[in-house]
Amino acid sequence: MDNREYALKAHKEWGGKIEVIARSKIKTKEDLAVAYTPGVAVPCLEIEKDENKAYDYTRKSNLVAVITNGTAVLGLGDIGPSAGMPVMEGKCVLFKEFGGVDAFPLCVDTKDVDDLVNVIYKISKSFGGINLEDIGAPACFEVERRLKEMCDIPVFHDDQHGTAIVVTAALINAAKLKGQKPEELKIVMNGAGAAGISITKLLLDAGFKDIVVCDSKGILCEGVTTAEGAKGEIARMTNREKKTGSLADAMKGSDIFVGVSKGNLVSEEMVQSMNEKPIILAMANPTPEIMPDKALHAGAYIVGTGRSDFPNQINNVLVFPGVFKGALAVRATEITDSMKMAAAKAIASVVSEGELKPEYIIPDPFNPRVAQVVADAVAAEAKRIGINRI
Amino acid sequence: MDNREYALKAHKEWGGKIEVIARSKIKTKEDLAVAYTPGVAVPCLEIEKDENKAYDYTRKSNLVAVITNGTAVLGLGDIGPSAGMPVMEGKCVLFKEFGGVDAFPLCVDTKDVDDLVNVIYKISKSFGGINLEDIGAPACFEVERRLKEMCDIPVFHDDQHGTAIVVTAALINAAKLKGQKPEELKIVMNGAGAAGISITKLLLDAGFKDIVVCDSKGILCEGVTTAEGAKGEIARMTNREKKTGSLADAMKGSDIFVGVSKGNLVSEEMVQSMNEKPIILAMANPTPEIMPDKALHAGAYIVGTGRSDFPNQINNVLVFPGVFKGALAVRATEITDSMKMAAAKAIASVVSEGELKPEYIIPDPFNPRVAQVVADAVAAEAKRIGINRI
Repeated sequence: MDNREYALKAHKEWGGKIEVIARSKIKTKEDLAVAYTPGVAVPCLEIEKDENKAYDYTRKSNLVAVITNGTAVLGLGDIGPSAGMPVMEGKCVLFKEFGGVDAFPLCVDTKDVDDLVNVIYKISKSFGGINLEDIGAPACFEVERRLKEMCDIPVFHDDQHGTAIVVTAALINAAKLKGQKPEELKIVMNGAGAAGISITKLLLDAGFKDIVVCDSKGILCEGVTTAEGAKGEIARMTNREKKTGSLADAMKGSDIFVGVSKGNLVSEEMVQSMNEKPIILAMANPTPEIMPDKALHAGAYIVGTGRSDFPNQINNVLVFPGVFKGALAVRATEITDSMKMAAAKAIASVVSEGELKPEYIIPDPFNPRVAQVVADAVAAEAKRIGINRI
Repeated sequence: MDNREYALKAHKEWGGKIEVIARSKIKTKEDLAVAYTPGVAVPCLEIEKDENKAYDYTRKSNLVAVITNGTAVLGLGDIGPSAGMPVMEGKCVLFKEFGGVDAFPLCVDTKDVDDLVNVIYKISKSFGGINLEDIGAPACFEVERRLKEMCDIPVFHDDQHGTAIVVTAALINAAKLKGQKPEELKIVMNGAGAAGISITKLLLDAGFKDIVVCDSKGILCEGVTTAEGAKGEIARMTNREKKTGSLADAMKGSDIFVGVSKGNLVSEEMVQSMNEKPIILAMANPTPEIMPDKALHAGAYIVGTGRSDFPNQINNVLVFPGVFKGALAVRATEITDSMKMAAAKAIASVVSEGELKPEYIIPDPFNPRVAQVVADAVAAEAKRIGINRI
């Protein structure tokens, strides 16, 4: 049986990768009278008086919605809401298995931003947090921005921020290993979609001040390239030297390459044109921008990819279970930039100074400590800035 | 500790009455590669080609949404979506514990019919069925009617049809016990809200042709009382003799009283004014229209209530787990009137002729056979009329 057949067989046997079970078992009339009528009326009325009591008396306290409209599912593109469901179920499994967080998948059948925002907002009270997933750019930016304004629970577009947090964690440790400060390092960011833009913003926050962003046409440069919306905003925030040209031009004399773009875009020559001891995070899936052996052969000091079969897997499963676990622990009203930074530093901290080496700048996705360390850091930061409910 | 405190304590300890768990455990990188990327792409693409494959590769095959907008929660009225959640979670527990059906609660924050219909429709592809719950009349009628037209999965407003099915089951057996045919029995239906109207329609379908419906102002009579919408429709379908007057007037010379109204509306004198061997289903909660001891003292032959502390508990937990279990088993596109009737007959059939007696016309809610018997009947009817997918 090939991998394709095996994946289908496994999915069929699972009959769905998630399941809803009862925490309150109903074996007797007395059970029924407490969990259902008439007993259930008591918590209902408590919540009517104080909506925050929903955290005490319902699953809201540990429940995240994983929501897509199916417009940018994995690398498959716009495959629609029903076809996106196996990925959403998979994400929910990761929430539970890695973070102990209940997550429920919802596929919303609309491409209209107003409609998508409205649907998600109207069901948001049923959850303690909302993880937006695989919503295409640029719609994803507006959907998230508006929902963050409207909802009093965390709204987090994982494709943007999960990736940003794990890349920032990796580069915090990479800089430490190189013995340089973030502001001394020149970064080339290849890919100006949802992930690329969010990574760039968080890296700027983390002190990586010298970033040049490229899209498929080359370097983004304010006043030179015509980029609108989020891309235009990121052009204004980066490329201080007003460089122009191709990705190859951008990489000359840089220290770090971060790719969330396409496979095989980076040649050995491009790596050789970088400064000494270059760092390559080539995260295109399944084929990285440059394969690790080629990058190392060309002189790369540190190489990370999105793949599990090479060292330094840059995977946002290190991020979202812990981020939501921490946010839910304090019943946070949102996930702020400072909480994202706290998460990045927490992930980086799991690799001790003694363990840190070029092949190990980021914890393994299966490291059981990560989610709790991230959760604790996120919860502490939420409390520090006062957006906690408990 | 009083019952009130106990209900709160229990709810707090449960921390939510439902939980989402992973059916596909993730212990190794290989597990991750099948349940998530890259393996998950295979079922995604299969579903993109044929949406019905969602039943094979996701939880849709056994998953119902329990949806309210919190406008008519239990007897508490319009307490809002968050406060309705404990009831919705309780309902989900009953789906699982009694029928083995996964159910997930969603509280939608809108009272606007168009908006509610839109929100539910847009998330409907994530589920194999939709159970509408505790939505106030008359909005509930339009919401259900429109969703039934729009969705290709069963949409079922349990407050209407669950109650109708269990009452019809009870009266099928009551008529059998009395040795009379349905068409020979005069019914007074007190309550013309969502439940009352739906009960009346299903009883008419079941051959109970002589029904007089009362609301809080008295007998509904076409051309005499001014009733609009669903109530006007039901007035046209009932009261063949064009009776007018009060509930007491309606009950004179009737055989069956069905109440889904308020406590203590029916006196012993009213029971005494009925025909010989009257049947009283007094289902107002928590206080019935007349208490069983009073009804029996006044000469009632059969008494049923909604309560678990008297015989003949008329509870729709006998209905919805089996109805959805059967509909999901054949991946039905809807739940038709004929499937409801099949469910009613199936529930009635669980009480054998040898067991049938005035104190036992309907199975106990905890009878473990009911859900499967109902599911089999509903699935068979769906196949007979050809609305099954498998």
